[in-house]
Amino acid sequence: MDAEIIAIGTELLLGFTVNTDTVFLGRVLAENGINCYRQVTVGDNKQRLAEAIRTALGRADLVITCGGLGPTVDDITLETIAEVTGRPLILHRALEKRIRARFRRIGIRMPASNIRQATIPKGAEVLSNDIGTAPGFFLKLNAAGRTKYLTALPGPPAELMPMTKRFLVPRLKRLGGAGILRSRTIKVTGLTESEVDAKVADLLRLKGKTTIGIYAHPAQIDLRITARGDSPRAAERLINRMEKRLRGRLGKLIFGVDEETLEGQVGTLLKRSKKTLAVAESCTGGLLQNRLTDVAGSSDYFLGGIVAYSNDLKRLVLGVPLQAIRRHGAVSPEVARMMAQGVCRLTEARIGLSITGIAGPSGGSKQKPVGLVYIGLSAGGKTQVIRCRFSGNRGVIKYRASQAALNLLRLHLLKG
Amino acid sequence: MDAEIIAIGTELLLGFTVNTDTVFLGRVLAENGINCYRQVTVGDNKQRLAEAIRTALGRADLVITCGGLGPTVDDITLETIAEVTGRPLILHRALEKRIRARFRRIGIRMPASNIRQATIPKGAEVLSNDIGTAPGFFLKLNAAGRTKYLTALPGPPAELMPMTKRFLVPRLKRLGGAGILRSRTIKVTGLTESEVDAKVADLLRLKGKTTIGIYAHPAQIDLRITARGDSPRAAERLINRMEKRLRGRLGKLIFGVDEETLEGQVGTLLKRSKKTLAVAESCTGGLLQNRLTDVAGSSDYFLGGIVAYSNDLKRLVLGVPLQAIRRHGAVSPEVARMMAQGVCRLTEARIGLSITGIAGPSGGSKQKPVGLVYIGLSAGGKTQVIRCRFSGNRGVIKYRASQAALNLLRLHLLKG
Repeated sequence: MDAEIIAIGTELLLGFTVNTDTVFLGRVLAENGINCYRQVTVGDNKQRLAEAIRTALGRADLVITCGGLGPTVDDITLETIAEVTGRPLILHRALEKRIRARFRRIGIRMPASNIRQATIPKGAEVLSNDIGTAPGFFLKLNAAGRTKYLTALPGPPAELMPMTKRFLVPRLKRLGGAGILRSRTIKVTGLTESEVDAKVADLLRLKGKTTIGIYAHPAQIDLRITARGDSPRAAERLINRMEKRLRGRLGKLIFGVDEETLEGQVGTLLKRSKKTLAVAESCTGGLLQNRLTDVAGSSDYFLGGIVAYSNDLKRLVLGVPLQAIRRHGAVSPEVARMMAQGVCRLTEARIGLSITGIAGPSGGSKQKPVGLVYIGLSAGGKTQVIRCRFSGNRGVIKYRASQAALNLLRLHLLKG
Repeated sequence: MDAEIIAIGTELLLGFTVNTDTVFLGRVLAENGINCYRQVTVGDNKQRLAEAIRTALGRADLVITCGGLGPTVDDITLETIAEVTGRPLILHRALEKRIRARFRRIGIRMPASNIRQATIPKGAEVLSNDIGTAPGFFLKLNAAGRTKYLTALPGPPAELMPMTKRFLVPRLKRLGGAGILRSRTIKVTGLTESEVDAKVADLLRLKGKTTIGIYAHPAQIDLRITARGDSPRAAERLINRMEKRLRGRLGKLIFGVDEETLEGQVGTLLKRSKKTLAVAESCTGGLLQNRLTDVAGSSDYFLGGIVAYSNDLKRLVLGVPLQAIRRHGAVSPEVARMMAQGVCRLTEARIGLSITGIAGPSGGSKQKPVGLVYIGLSAGGKTQVIRCRFSGNRGVIKYRASQAALNLLRLHLLKG
């Protein structure tokens, strides 16, 4: 079974509104084993909407429209669907009663235009709306000798989402799809997209019940496993099998699954090891500590730290001698080492993590270009420093540096 | 001139990724007077993409594709465009050199698959990409006896957005549009959406050449003025007139326009006043300093600061007596005051800004609920403390607190 989604609204085309309806419906369709090969957005224009509905009914079994069901003149979905399908709009008594009652309840006289919202195409089932006044509907059609389904939902996500869950999903389940689709995202850091690709290229090319997609983010590569099975359990089993294969290839480079974050994983490892952490950061300007404290309960292991943006602060608070900064430069393995050691001394944390680098856009030189970053980790009397070279703008370099520092800490904690 | 946008990626159809590219491009087209009547999303499927491009070229003058330009096998945009337009892919020497140099610079051997990213359709102009390896291109075509334009951009917004601004917008300006649409966003903080609405409700209802939309974000309300004129200047004039009216109503509550950020405005004011800043933050965990250092050149006025997450650090580094913390609690006006004063003392900054509060989800009590935050500002021997109560989850409370601190600082700097 194939579906196509049509989103309606000039505000979507103009970029004034982000379309979260299609994101939500895309997931719902996938979870119910229904393929969605196309999404189309058109404005509040009858001719173009009619064309989009006609084309979609020509190629898909199920067409979902979102938006354009409101009471104003630019809400054209009802009329257009009536026209395209040849099903006239008829007044639905129960809907009319409900709309009138709603206006009475909030003490406002019902504007005449709202009566339009009590009409639906002949033969359609009403999908009622508990939040707003615009109902949706579900219509079974015969087009090109085949049974087709057309369903119309209101645009506001607060209305569309509960209506989908309550009324559309049960119907989708009855229509049935070719098996249940499940997916899981395996998250990798420390390699580029091409490097990950080189390790799993054969798996990416697999066609069949289980497939893998690769998606690059700054300093993070996602591998999304998708599997189709006759039951949720069968799909999960296929996913588990593929996850095992990916773990065989990528090992510790995998830091998490689905909603897990790198900072969350680091938190779990710190909690488990009962170690405390303090941070001294320069070029990342607080980002590393901000990410660490995005994790609820991080005060259990994170003591705090220093944003040593000026050299004076590096000296005053972290005890990095000005002489060392003068000799090696603030961006140097030596200063990264002293910052990590200094913040351990200051806070008595078991682990000290430091970052010093050049986030740009200015401040770079031939010897020390923008994107050069040193990361230090001090623990148990030993300090290691790694050198990184990141590309991107200021924000991206800050993020990549924080990601590399979290990953260095994660690998350290995994070792013991 | 009409445009059509084609977004490419199975992850978009499955609802794994929110499509912000089309939102951004929709705005850019509108601002340049180019109509966009349709957006289409297709998956990583050559046949359906080819059909979408063919249909779009049949009805629009300009077709923009986003996505599918990466180095992996499921990146099909290049080949498909070559096929549909009959323009073979040719190796672009300068691109090849740049890609090889990029890999050399970061010290990684270039995987063979990346060489595909050095090819473009014959006759296309390269739109270069400073962030990732996938370049875009701009292709002038002759289809159905008319001149058409086809441009391909990479999917990641961090790459697509700067490339659009730098390379596509100048070309759009040359292509020109009918009736120029311009818009400007006036940004407000310190009021709720309803409070802003109450001040400008009559202006929001205006219909005609100039209209205003209201959009709420956490701790920020945007008023978007849109005006249509025969020339850019005429549209700008209408916008200027409306901005003046809004400023008359909202005054200092307006902190910026369009791309201006609160942290950027604070930076400008600090630079102008030649004052230095240091920060002591607790519940925001580094977010405030991270935002301050997102501004390029912030090292001119921002010295750094402390993330005093534990009480020990508040005492050790900021000199807040444990006794005071015991008596008033770490989340109290007294401790906020001492933190702001302490960080001034420590760093010799002219201004000290402090935040202490409860970000949740745990740690709240009846007297001190989740969302309670005190913000201190110490300058010229005087310290003020404000009390705030924020709603939302942990991340939103952190953000609202950082926003309120930046706004307190902005209002202080505006006074003198």
